Amino acid sequence: MSFETIWLKKAALPGEPGISSYVPGVGIKDSIERELRILRGLREDFVFSVMVTGSLPEEGYELLVGDGKVDILGGSDEGVLYGIFDAMRQLILTDTVVSTSECPACPLRMLNHWDNADGSIERGYSGQSFFFRDGELIVDDRTLFYARLCASVGINATVINNVNVKDKATLLITDEYLPKVRELADCLGSYGVKLYLCVNYAASMELGGCAVADPLDEDVIAYWKKAADHIYEAVPNFGGFLVKADSEGRPGPFTYGRTQADGANMLARALAPHGGKLIWRCFVYNCSQDWRDTETDRACAQYNSFYMLDGQFDDNVILQVKNGPVDFQVREPVSPLFCAMKNTNLMLEVQAAQEYTGQQRHVCYLIPMWKDVLRFHTYAYENNDRVRDIIGGAHRPGGNCGIAAVTNTGDDENWTGSDFAAANWYGFGRLAWNPSLSAETIAEEWAGLTFGDDKDVVAVVVKVLLASYGIYEDYTAPLGIGWMCNPNYHYGPNVDGYEYDRWGTYHRASCKAVGVDRSSRGTGYSQQYSEPLAKMYDDPATTPQELLLFFHRLPYTYVLPSGKTLIQHIYDTHFEGVEKLRELIEAVITVQGMIPEKEYTRIMERFAMQLANAKEWRDRINTYFCRMSGIGDAKHRKIYAVSEEDLTYPENEDGTM
Amino acid sequence: MSFETIWLKKAALPGEPGISSYVPGVGIKDSIERELRILRGLREDFVFSVMVTGSLPEEGYELLVGDGKVDILGGSDEGVLYGIFDAMRQLILTDTVVSTSECPACPLRMLNHWDNADGSIERGYSGQSFFFRDGELIVDDRTLFYARLCASVGINATVINNVNVKDKATLLITDEYLPKVRELADCLGSYGVKLYLCVNYAASMELGGCAVADPLDEDVIAYWKKAADHIYEAVPNFGGFLVKADSEGRPGPFTYGRTQADGANMLARALAPHGGKLIWRCFVYNCSQDWRDTETDRACAQYNSFYMLDGQFDDNVILQVKNGPVDFQVREPVSPLFCAMKNTNLMLEVQAAQEYTGQQRHVCYLIPMWKDVLRFHTYAYENNDRVRDIIGGAHRPGGNCGIAAVTNTGDDENWTGSDFAAANWYGFGRLAWNPSLSAETIAEEWAGLTFGDDKDVVAVVVKVLLASYGIYEDYTAPLGIGWMCNPNYHYGPNVDGYEYDRWGTYHRASCKAVGVDRSSRGTGYSQQYSEPLAKMYDDPATTPQELLLFFHRLPYTYVLPSGKTLIQHIYDTHFEGVEKLRELIEAVITVQGMIPEKEYTRIMERFAMQLANAKEWRDRINTYFCRMSGIGDAKHRKIYAVSEEDLTYPENEDGTM
Repeated sequence: MSFETIWLKKAALPGEPGISSYVPGVGIKDSIERELRILRGLREDFVFSVMVTGSLPEEGYELLVGDGKVDILGGSDEGVLYGIFDAMRQLILTDTVVSTSECPACPLRMLNHWDNADGSIERGYSGQSFFFRDGELIVDDRTLFYARLCASVGINATVINNVNVKDKATLLITDEYLPKVRELADCLGSYGVKLYLCVNYAASMELGGCAVADPLDEDVIAYWKKAADHIYEAVPNFGGFLVKADSEGRPGPFTYGRTQADGANMLARALAPHGGKLIWRCFVYNCSQDWRDTETDRACAQYNSFYMLDGQFDDNVILQVKNGPVDFQVREPVSPLFCAMKNTNLMLEVQAAQEYTGQQRHVCYLIPMWKDVLRFHTYAYENNDRVRDIIGGAHRPGGNCGIAAVTNTGDDENWTGSDFAAANWYGFGRLAWNPSLSAETIAEEWAGLTFGDDKDVVAVVVKVLLASYGIYEDYTAPLGIGWMCNPNYHYGPNVDGYEYDRWGTYHRASCKAVGVDRSSRGTGYSQQYSEPLAKMYDDPATTPQELLLFFHRLPYTYVLPSGKTLIQHIYDTHFEGVEKLRELIEAVITVQGMIPEKEYTRIMERFAMQLANAKEWRDRINTYFCRMSGIGDAKHRKIYAVSEEDLTYPENEDGTM
Repeated sequence: MSFETIWLKKAALPGEPGISSYVPGVGIKDSIERELRILRGLREDFVFSVMVTGSLPEEGYELLVGDGKVDILGGSDEGVLYGIFDAMRQLILTDTVVSTSECPACPLRMLNHWDNADGSIERGYSGQSFFFRDGELIVDDRTLFYARLCASVGINATVINNVNVKDKATLLITDEYLPKVRELADCLGSYGVKLYLCVNYAASMELGGCAVADPLDEDVIAYWKKAADHIYEAVPNFGGFLVKADSEGRPGPFTYGRTQADGANMLARALAPHGGKLIWRCFVYNCSQDWRDTETDRACAQYNSFYMLDGQFDDNVILQVKNGPVDFQVREPVSPLFCAMKNTNLMLEVQAAQEYTGQQRHVCYLIPMWKDVLRFHTYAYENNDRVRDIIGGAHRPGGNCGIAAVTNTGDDENWTGSDFAAANWYGFGRLAWNPSLSAETIAEEWAGLTFGDDKDVVAVVVKVLLASYGIYEDYTAPLGIGWMCNPNYHYGPNVDGYEYDRWGTYHRASCKAVGVDRSSRGTGYSQQYSEPLAKMYDDPATTPQELLLFFHRLPYTYVLPSGKTLIQHIYDTHFEGVEKLRELIEAVITVQGMIPEKEYTRIMERFAMQLANAKEWRDRINTYFCRMSGIGDAKHRKIYAVSEEDLTYPENEDGTM
């Protein structure tokens, strides 16, 4: 069996493409041995040695380099592994190793797979699951290689099944699966990756014979205690549960008039004796809104469901909060829950799977977006008030915090469908380890580890990655308004696709203005933030330009900080987005022949899809707003309005009259 | 086995619900015997006799009544059957029989089922197929009852499989199915209903081993000749083929640079020696249009594909033309092909299946629409220029013309999902027999035959039926513009649902105006009609109001013949449509207890769905156009615009300033 390595391409054993075959029973010592052999192959004139020492933080490591000798010290076996991978990275990129000392910024650095037991993947754009096939759990060469790739960037935990736990997945915590779960946990553990499972909140009824799933019911409590005891008996190194409850049709404590804290704590108490963690998603909102209801604002929902519960969660509960208040749009403000939940363990959830960002047909390097979230000041504390501080544990004891990414992996040969999308997996791990790394540094590392020695290739790849997020934002929904995509599958433009639907995602464009007023004069969402954020977001004049249409309803003639009118900004960004994309594609064409032909062809096929879809976005957004506003493009570019008589044109290029 | 009768409820044998059980080998003489027994049971004091006579037209009949004696003369066995059913209808409705002489207006009075071999029905809203189950062809009690219901209203032909012939349905003309096809043809034939099949135009390749499906290729010609010979050997009373070619992805002669006439004639010549007919659908258009292409107009497509072929089709070819140029919208002009194809056999195709007219959740009695089509003057001839004259054979010898309805039947207990929808099946047959019958007469007949003696019930049912089409039109897409429904499944409102899609169905609404200019100044569609129609449709001032937005692009402030502005007309019809629906529902509530409870409950359940969906239509259409135009409702009713500042209000109730 062989599959393409997506980074560390040079880090393979002679005769083996990247990793030796999986053998049941491997442990972390075997992994260290194996990686040391690979490391030595990269620089045979160096002498490498490894050692575990209690003087370092548990996951930390130190590289001591001198005179052709590299000592790799780790606070644990995992620390040693991370040190080996650091040395490997340095050798591939620079052909040498320098001394360094590192420890991770976040305790939990986790992937969330939305893989279903039947082998499909919810929001998967890279083929089928490699964890599940036709209801069977798989542990094979790919599993081991997956664990290795995770470890190479410091990822230390994974949830292998979809948060929407249905059908056979409900049985993962039963004897039908537990022997195989143990084998999987051991395989992943051999690279320091701890296994978690999503559980069905209603399992007490579906499996336990209880009449209810009420978290205060004695039978339910007893069921989960017994279930947890049994899991840990079968899988001693089990991590814990991730739960989506009371969300988009999933069962939860609300059914029984209980709070989210009641539900989470009940499960957490079953796990606590075993050191297990209970991760509880905050993605709770009304997904049956009537579009005619203009009072309800989905952006407010998560805060409103949780803020009053702050301090009521057990120590081994972690609330997992999506980066924004809605749902992984290309641009959202940071969730105000990071301001509100000061006495609660929090994890940040980001989405590497490009559900709303081009579904791995479009290149969209997400590290810049995630960095914006991590460095966001919540003003909830005097010091260390950034999201990265909060999820790094600056204000909470016990290390129950961290960051999770909904993954973009599948069984495609290149793992992520798009070759470039692997940079998001790589970058997620690197950023979770060290949020100070710049997007550019991460891009350069990944490009070098993936595409090898040629400086021109690396430069082009880095250029593509760094420009991609801004370009994608340019040609899709403008100024933070989000959505405007096709319902259900979320690919391609559809301005009114969600406008009259039940999902609470409205732009409410009229011939005069567009957007939802989320200020204190509107739905009040802006007031969920700490000051001075609440004040800043309350006023269009002080709201960051890129979020203007998230927070405000504005006329098309509103003049932005850039000096352009809102409508002219829409036209300009949409025309420019496509042009910039063309330039990127042309840049990649210059390195044809310097990238392996298979990869090059695959990249170009995806670029062709991206370009056609970007034009479709440009034309549909521009046409929609041109027809709606009756205002023509100041630069008279092609927009598919119907007749010129319908339009008035601004006098100036910035759209002003 | 039992199933509800949907009309002729009283016409059952004692102890038998409607019809005796199907026994293979029954013939039309058996049916005449059976129906005579039923007839006699309705009026035991009358003496009924039957006779075939050569002095009457083949399908015609005469009832001679005198002194308690009813002589039923028919031009054939079929004519006798039709006479018996006439007598039955009279007895149930009036308790007596009067003398009459009848013969059908159209030679072919046909149903088109879009049933698939797997048992599903394309655009079916009444359950699954009763002809197919899991790839098997079914002949049972229901088949016989179906044939009886058809015969009772004069329907004399049926096509049992979907025009999109795929998978196992391709094999219907092979020995895998032919023995069962024969049994089915005999069963249907026992009530005078001739069986036709849809064939896969590419069968020469899929079944015949030919390299092509080129209609001029010798192998292809030989394949079809052999296939037709074989079919008629197995099924001597077989009717012929219905073909959808070069349409929505179906194969056809265009692939080989041949004309539609080449394709149709090739198949027709295979059938001709056996007296078979070849029915060829004209539903040909480009279903991959770019919405940015404003030159192409789907309304023009069918005329443009066929007009130059007039006179080139063989005598046993019939072109089947949809009533309008697009696709079964609630309001379309009559297809200009009825003006153009003066030397070609034509059939009219209407749709009883309520694909775009509420999918049998909404009551929508379609007889008024069909009557509008039938009485439409084409101006193609000096005399007898109505569509009904053309499809009745006024200008073509040989009787190869008629009318077909895409059916609304399935295996639901009440056959048509909605109890009221059966009136469209019933009415189609009656109208095909005699287009002079009024919509009201047909409604009264059906209500009396279905709901029995109570005059109040009949009056309410007739009221509901007669108002339903206008009400449905009121609250859906306005003034003939069509579409504005959800893509794919075509239920419920979605104003922009097709606006940026590939189907050629655009409204192109802007803040100033709405509609596509199909006049000579626009796409030129209006010029496909004969004069004076071409001139009439070319000018908004002379275009019938209900079709204004089919033919013209008009500003919201355009004043209609009614004196209202276009935008005020939209608001008024949408508010009024819902109110009128409420009144209908209230009328039905007054007869609760007078309709069997099961039917009443079913009717009320559907009304609840219809009312909710009608409100959704009202609110989405009104909101869309209010936001778009910036013009408020003169009567200040509730529209979900966003802010009052966006709106200007007219001074007068008719919307004028």
